Amino acid sequence: MSPSREGRSREPKLDTAPPRGMRDVLPDEVQLRDGAIATILDVYRRYGFQRIETPAVESIRLLTRSEGGENEKLIFKILKRGEKLATAREPEDLADLGLRFDLTVPLARYYANNHARLPQPLKAIQIGPVWRAERPQHGRFRQFTQCDIDILGVGSEVAEIELILATIDALLALGLHDLTVRINDRRILAGLARHCGFAEARFDSVFVALDKLDKIGKPGVLEELQGQGHSETAIGVLLALLDEGTGAAWRLDELPELLGDRVEASVWPALRRVLDTVRGAGTRYHIVFDPTLVRGMSYYTGPIFEIRHGTGASSIAGGGRYDRMIGKLLGRDVPATGFSIGFERVIGILRERDAAPAPTGERVAIVFDEDTSHLGKVFAWAGQQRDQGHIVLLELRGKKLGRQLQELEARGFERIGLLADDGSFEWREPRTTPSRGAAS
Amino acid sequence: MSPSREGRSREPKLDTAPPRGMRDVLPDEVQLRDGAIATILDVYRRYGFQRIETPAVESIRLLTRSEGGENEKLIFKILKRGEKLATAREPEDLADLGLRFDLTVPLARYYANNHARLPQPLKAIQIGPVWRAERPQHGRFRQFTQCDIDILGVGSEVAEIELILATIDALLALGLHDLTVRINDRRILAGLARHCGFAEARFDSVFVALDKLDKIGKPGVLEELQGQGHSETAIGVLLALLDEGTGAAWRLDELPELLGDRVEASVWPALRRVLDTVRGAGTRYHIVFDPTLVRGMSYYTGPIFEIRHGTGASSIAGGGRYDRMIGKLLGRDVPATGFSIGFERVIGILRERDAAPAPTGERVAIVFDEDTSHLGKVFAWAGQQRDQGHIVLLELRGKKLGRQLQELEARGFERIGLLADDGSFEWREPRTTPSRGAAS
Repeated sequence: MSPSREGRSREPKLDTAPPRGMRDVLPDEVQLRDGAIATILDVYRRYGFQRIETPAVESIRLLTRSEGGENEKLIFKILKRGEKLATAREPEDLADLGLRFDLTVPLARYYANNHARLPQPLKAIQIGPVWRAERPQHGRFRQFTQCDIDILGVGSEVAEIELILATIDALLALGLHDLTVRINDRRILAGLARHCGFAEARFDSVFVALDKLDKIGKPGVLEELQGQGHSETAIGVLLALLDEGTGAAWRLDELPELLGDRVEASVWPALRRVLDTVRGAGTRYHIVFDPTLVRGMSYYTGPIFEIRHGTGASSIAGGGRYDRMIGKLLGRDVPATGFSIGFERVIGILRERDAAPAPTGERVAIVFDEDTSHLGKVFAWAGQQRDQGHIVLLELRGKKLGRQLQELEARGFERIGLLADDGSFEWREPRTTPSRGAAS
Repeated sequence: MSPSREGRSREPKLDTAPPRGMRDVLPDEVQLRDGAIATILDVYRRYGFQRIETPAVESIRLLTRSEGGENEKLIFKILKRGEKLATAREPEDLADLGLRFDLTVPLARYYANNHARLPQPLKAIQIGPVWRAERPQHGRFRQFTQCDIDILGVGSEVAEIELILATIDALLALGLHDLTVRINDRRILAGLARHCGFAEARFDSVFVALDKLDKIGKPGVLEELQGQGHSETAIGVLLALLDEGTGAAWRLDELPELLGDRVEASVWPALRRVLDTVRGAGTRYHIVFDPTLVRGMSYYTGPIFEIRHGTGASSIAGGGRYDRMIGKLLGRDVPATGFSIGFERVIGILRERDAAPAPTGERVAIVFDEDTSHLGKVFAWAGQQRDQGHIVLLELRGKKLGRQLQELEARGFERIGLLADDGSFEWREPRTTPSRGAAS
């Protein structure tokens, strides 16, 4: 029982659950999330990245002109206000703003709006919530955190190398080992599609099918491509290539020859440089060329990459180059490439491991009586302990002292002191092995 | 000139400004804000507070039943989606969700929803954005950050003492000195209004007028009360009391006698205990009783308090006790009190002082040619420096090297190295005194 004064009910209750698909985060998980963010930020800052911030809200016009693919259909739209709402005639005219569905579209607007006051090139960190009105399902939420780094203003593959190394370092710092980077280039994908003989205007739907190879296998890809009415000959060539598996056609040594001038010549040495430099920089991860890697967004123009953890079939980080997006806002193209950590997935892995970062300082609790005449002394002593970096929790003595002390131990308080009414003070020896977790 | 490849315009530009009343935050200010948040969190955690998180979005029903006063009129409402929108008939039926306008209403819902899994009492930290569709004006934005601590489950004034000491400690840690805490109690305000003879049902409008005393003076308060049609006799008694200024009627020694049984007897010793204990705990601030202090929200039920900085006429932190709010959601009252730092005001003061926290580690920049064959060495060396805690920025050599080096110096890079094509390396001596700020 807590030391509270509680009264009677007076009104019917409102539903107290968070909105559908959204969630309340309990203190222990917030601590894990804050610790992970601090770790990631520390790594990225040492690479010279700087955090920027944009509003959670953007204009509907920007959000719906952003090549965000499916995500544009999932925008939470904000109702116009006052007179503007009163004069809105059509349903599509009711909203003027929307919640951002990713951090890349706002970054492009931010850069276009502020480029004259920003370091050139810009190495930006963004960590913050995004919103998508998806049908809620297990482990996926309508508000979730994204954690991106982007380099704007560098056309060289040096930018990709740095993004990949920084992201690997951040994941290693979080204790995630067994990392595999997969890399491809949108121009190689296009070259492959050309080689097979698919219609140029319909490459995107070929990529969408190929993107599902891991999930639906070759028969699934075949069925999807046939269903879309693609050329049987082209499908046949692609399937034959897939049948060769890790054979000749897929090796970076021989693919340039196979695809010939269907891929710009400069693509290959750049890709090789990324592979060689990333491999040479460390031994605690793998990097492989995967010509079937697609990544969803249609705004990618060059290298694309993702990171998988252990034997997981889905990625925990993904990104790529999008050299054409900023031009649409700024009026001139600015080369850009970014890498996004799937923060919620990473937290999911860390939670399974119970890998909460150890709280700093000792955790001390002092229990005292509300009517004590020694209140000044209690606060003075607690202040001294805090100045030494300890966490000091002051608690009023509840009705059931034994249970109160047990709960404090369960919450990880290593030292618990009792101040009696007469001013005498005693430390309690913990009776149980402290284990972390919320009090019941 | 940055080392970028830039192309031609292709499409007409979209407006790239953020939505009306919202803002982009540049890297230097984000660093200042992040540093301030880290400082505040560090202090609050040592007091045993724990961060919690709620979604940015809440149901319209919750937001509009929350005693949020004027703030309820300023809700950004979110359009219903799909079929629910198609079947909405009335304008007020178009939205089902809204962006939160403060952190107190969501906290009450969070507690009601999760209390069985939360420590009792709950000592919560909340830091996050809130949204209000106010008419934009200088220095006020439609998205801004609030920074609250609340204690739920403690009815004793010990909670107020802890909130006040923790908030003072946080502000002192930010380098804000010359702090004055003002404290009052809603029940004393009510007693005063009773003493003057105002109609009980209209106390709130008396408080609203009194709240403006600092801004509009006694003549302004008189005019407003007369305009509202309050009893001339009651207004006369109040004005006479105000004329006595800091005289007898306002002294905590004599006010209890003046107000007699118009105020619960227990209010006075509790208030005195807060004043004495906070005064006794430190010397770097003042705390005064101010019977004219009102605070806007109508949900307050007991002690209310705010902090002013220097000679500023407006507060940089404010809070109070709201023992009746959680009961409306939970069905039983839970005593609650909170203190909120006006984060944007505090950042405004820190920016004027140019009091950005010093970045940790040395800031090193390495400039090299894109075609270097020493890329592996560059990344390896940078990695070693980062492992030692330094910030290492890698930059491709631009067309105008002199200007590039100047800009790096201006951005605070203390050591700048140049890697030549032949693999030779030289450190550049800074030519100007480094000063922090964005590159032009």
